[in-house]
Amino acid sequence: MRLDILTLFPEMFEGVFESSILKKAKEKKAYDYQLIDFREYTENKHKKVDDYPYGGGAGMVLSPQPIFDAVEDLKNQESNPRVILMCPQGEPYTQQKAEQLAKEDHLILVCGHYEGFDERIRTELATDEISIGDYVLTGGELGAMVVTDSVVRLLPEALGNEQSAKADSFSHNLLEHPHYTRPSDFRGHKVPEVLLSGNHQKIEEWREYESLKRTLIRRPDLINENDLSERQLKLLNDIKTKIDIASN
Amino acid sequence: MRLDILTLFPEMFEGVFESSILKKAKEKKAYDYQLIDFREYTENKHKKVDDYPYGGGAGMVLSPQPIFDAVEDLKNQESNPRVILMCPQGEPYTQQKAEQLAKEDHLILVCGHYEGFDERIRTELATDEISIGDYVLTGGELGAMVVTDSVVRLLPEALGNEQSAKADSFSHNLLEHPHYTRPSDFRGHKVPEVLLSGNHQKIEEWREYESLKRTLIRRPDLINENDLSERQLKLLNDIKTKIDIASN
Repeated sequence: MRLDILTLFPEMFEGVFESSILKKAKEKKAYDYQLIDFREYTENKHKKVDDYPYGGGAGMVLSPQPIFDAVEDLKNQESNPRVILMCPQGEPYTQQKAEQLAKEDHLILVCGHYEGFDERIRTELATDEISIGDYVLTGGELGAMVVTDSVVRLLPEALGNEQSAKADSFSHNLLEHPHYTRPSDFRGHKVPEVLLSGNHQKIEEWREYESLKRTLIRRPDLINENDLSERQLKLLNDIKTKIDIASN
Repeated sequence: MRLDILTLFPEMFEGVFESSILKKAKEKKAYDYQLIDFREYTENKHKKVDDYPYGGGAGMVLSPQPIFDAVEDLKNQESNPRVILMCPQGEPYTQQKAEQLAKEDHLILVCGHYEGFDERIRTELATDEISIGDYVLTGGELGAMVVTDSVVRLLPEALGNEQSAKADSFSHNLLEHPHYTRPSDFRGHKVPEVLLSGNHQKIEEWREYESLKRTLIRRPDLINENDLSERQLKLLNDIKTKIDIASN
């Protein structure tokens, strides 16, 4: 996969892109990235990339010219990339979207900073707009890092089997069950006995129950009953009954 | 504000923390941060911070001892910090949560990496668990950067008035209206005439309408009719009627 990132702050990326899985994925040639400072594309003699908003108001707006020219330059070198604006007005980012993007050959991520994008960048140039969550960030750079990390770790060449399996368990839309490791007693707080029993069927049942319970309590919005097995639906009803009793 | 970040990858943070608003906020003494590699706290002679999960299964689990000791060391130095785990099982992060955290004096953010946390870290040590979104990331580091950026920019000492005003407009839970800047005609794509009219009332009306329309089309989940003025409710109905007609 080829990844081009348009940003006014390329120096923000190195620590993240040259660590851990992103570094290894690059070494394994699963992907490669380029950081492009779109200020270098501006035709403005003062190297400005933004300007006052038509109609007045606070804040500056990113001008269309430098971003159009930078994207078109990158497109000339290759076929048909997705052009993704990182912005709070975008579609909320999900694991499903990451899986979709991981199938592409070439992504261009465009980061604003402080300012909004001129609307014509949105309507005439972008193929996607992504928001990583409902909170205000200084710029699109952290969003671009989130998209890169979540997409690159899905590339088959990037990870070993163990990690891929872990990612898979997420697409079932349930939160993970609790994990415990040694010591079995840490300052008086003990590991549940079932996990020490060696009874693998019981352990699996406990984990399934705890995963459903945690999801029901913390993120009921994630539960889609159509995705659950008959067994899980029965468990879910048991949990609901217990919660009802406990709260009466 | 004092911010301590527990991570196995402190080198990931510098590019983000030493750029733009985070850098300025530190220079203005609005906040200061410390990166703590909790591997330095492990009592394991091989410097291991994780171990196999009780009950079997893929993946490693972060041991309680190094993280407990690191957090307690930081607490000894100061009073009563929030201890926040960055993890997919956490509460979905929002701007409201950022505003809440911005009122604290001391935050400790704990980042896992690949592995899950031993459950006792969750139940006995953490005060909060935060997830920045429903996607799988390699570790909690990007989440910690997102929380830091969104919280620090709310500190009164960190930003000028113009930016604070912008953040405010977000708490109304509507997406921003389109922005346009020069040129008024970019490759045949023109700025809406109302924005060139100089009629400030008309411009405000257009912006309110477009903001409601964009939110209704893209993020209807954000609209809480109780938060809208009577005027906005009427506009919303007009927009719905127009969409109905257009789709018939």
